[in-house]
Amino acid sequence: MSRAIALAEKGRGFTSPNPMVGAVVVKDGRIVGEGWHKGPGLAHAEVNAIDDAGKEAEGADIYVTLEPCNHFGRTPPCTRKILDAGICRVFVSVVDPNPFVKGGGIEFLREKGITVETGVCQQAGETLIEDFIWFVKNQKRPFVILKCASTLDGRIATRTGDSRWITNEKSRAHVHLLRHRVDAILIGSGTLHADNPSLTSRVDGMETRDPRRVVLDSHLSIDPDALVITGPSNADTIVMTALDAPSHKKKILETRGVTVVAVPRCPVSGGLDLAAVMGILGKMNIMSVLIEGGGTVVGSALAAGVVNKVMFFLAPKILGGDDGVSVCRGKGPSLMKDSFSLKRVDMVPFDDDILIQGYLN
Amino acid sequence: MSRAIALAEKGRGFTSPNPMVGAVVVKDGRIVGEGWHKGPGLAHAEVNAIDDAGKEAEGADIYVTLEPCNHFGRTPPCTRKILDAGICRVFVSVVDPNPFVKGGGIEFLREKGITVETGVCQQAGETLIEDFIWFVKNQKRPFVILKCASTLDGRIATRTGDSRWITNEKSRAHVHLLRHRVDAILIGSGTLHADNPSLTSRVDGMETRDPRRVVLDSHLSIDPDALVITGPSNADTIVMTALDAPSHKKKILETRGVTVVAVPRCPVSGGLDLAAVMGILGKMNIMSVLIEGGGTVVGSALAAGVVNKVMFFLAPKILGGDDGVSVCRGKGPSLMKDSFSLKRVDMVPFDDDILIQGYLN
Repeated sequence: MSRAIALAEKGRGFTSPNPMVGAVVVKDGRIVGEGWHKGPGLAHAEVNAIDDAGKEAEGADIYVTLEPCNHFGRTPPCTRKILDAGICRVFVSVVDPNPFVKGGGIEFLREKGITVETGVCQQAGETLIEDFIWFVKNQKRPFVILKCASTLDGRIATRTGDSRWITNEKSRAHVHLLRHRVDAILIGSGTLHADNPSLTSRVDGMETRDPRRVVLDSHLSIDPDALVITGPSNADTIVMTALDAPSHKKKILETRGVTVVAVPRCPVSGGLDLAAVMGILGKMNIMSVLIEGGGTVVGSALAAGVVNKVMFFLAPKILGGDDGVSVCRGKGPSLMKDSFSLKRVDMVPFDDDILIQGYLN
Repeated sequence: MSRAIALAEKGRGFTSPNPMVGAVVVKDGRIVGEGWHKGPGLAHAEVNAIDDAGKEAEGADIYVTLEPCNHFGRTPPCTRKILDAGICRVFVSVVDPNPFVKGGGIEFLREKGITVETGVCQQAGETLIEDFIWFVKNQKRPFVILKCASTLDGRIATRTGDSRWITNEKSRAHVHLLRHRVDAILIGSGTLHADNPSLTSRVDGMETRDPRRVVLDSHLSIDPDALVITGPSNADTIVMTALDAPSHKKKILETRGVTVVAVPRCPVSGGLDLAAVMGILGKMNIMSVLIEGGGTVVGSALAAGVVNKVMFFLAPKILGGDDGVSVCRGKGPSLMKDSFSLKRVDMVPFDDDILIQGYLN
């Protein structure tokens, strides 16, 4: 199953809105076939693995990271493929979390006399597709990752706005990999004006997919020549604005191919309602969103309760003073116990930087 | 030599102003004697190791973490002991850094026909006694460790001052161990008034030595009943104040056994001149100081350039908002490249907390 999970990983960044899936066919203790899902409309992992095994599949076992599908979608059901190939036993890591298909594939296989065991390496299998599981279980709300990068004393820029560079090359390269892995990346107009970023994914020696670029811009203050609109990218740009945003600006952006969506304001902060923003992105089949704040966006995202996972890159330096730009803006809690505690914490060093990551739910 | 370093560690917190030293006597590939320095006035490591070896010392090798002394101090010279015991070869990790004794012991032994090899596991040997090396090489300026403990977004308390607890029990227990290891602990009057700490060292299952407590208090605003003065401790309290501090308050404190020292103010910050403070502490034979700020003290210590080592404890939580208490106070640099970069960075997890430590010089 570990091998199947590793195979599934090869699809990361390419499969959305499908989950990554990997499969391994095993006979007499030998791997005879391997496969993974490469993208929407392409063959499922089980099909690739069984085809890879050829005749060896007969009487073999299959290890698959997600319950085989039992319905005709863009491809025929994998359960039928397993049955036809003469597979004897099926080992499944994660049962399909989709409330509409749950258990269907397993039930079908068992009815046909095939032994099915579930929950094999379940935790690793669930972490692999945590965004997909969240998305299908929560009425298509995207899995939201909040990325921060700061000095040890929590500063994302100096008092003059200088932020180049806080983290090291390895950390920044990893952020480009993260961008490839998510469906969308979201920033606020503050970061837009300060950095004019292109928000594309550039990874040495790897074909990447750019995430869709989402800008929160309640006044439509964005320059139509901003890199996020005009820069070369294989992904489109979505600007989220307020209901009262000037309509002539909206038109200019739309002629440049930008999708402009008006959302209500949050009654507390006065900024855009981030729960509404995420709801809209989910309806666009955006399964995962990487927030790259901006103190204002970081503060609003935390306050709105839309964040699933926090990825905090820390550089081993102290800016000093208290006049630098903070990781968060807005009003904080009065008691330390009301801070946002990361759960299931994991730490990854990038040379002398460290990534501290965990979940808020 | 690794064993000798481990033996030396047993003396940590007890030997100042002497360095920790460990020694191992080896014969025919077997350890036949072990010793370490247990405290000022007590036998040196070499003497303990040779006594432990007894007659086996004859014809044996000795591994010692620091160059054997060659002078009569409170104990006779170790070089004489080595010679009399019939030791053949001496392996030394660190040559005595004291400019007045440098090389004396090694030279003497070599003249007497004993083989001496130096620089064995030198880096580990130097790290072991980094405070001592700094102290003797820099005209008795103490080795200063800056300890911070914050949330990921660099907050040491909420806007209401609540700070219990940011870090977990394991991190806090380690701080108590640090207190035992240093000669003095230093705080500002802000921390004093906010927390009324006792600043003692309490470690489960271990006999500890309290550090001398140093409070920066330019106006002598300290309550004579503060725990740092009246609480049970085996160490005294030093209050550093400004030259113009009220003399009647000074007298009240002195009747309570507090040492009150007036120091000039820093012309830039207006606070006490921390370089002067460290100079005075060094003259009191305080070899190592742990600063437990307080944003004001942390900011001034960094600005004054007196910090050797930073120990930054981070808890995996985000306070949120920008109204919490910052790690540092004061004016920060305008460019990120002028931040304080940690060198020779090391990271130590304490459950889900992490200690990021490094040197500023």
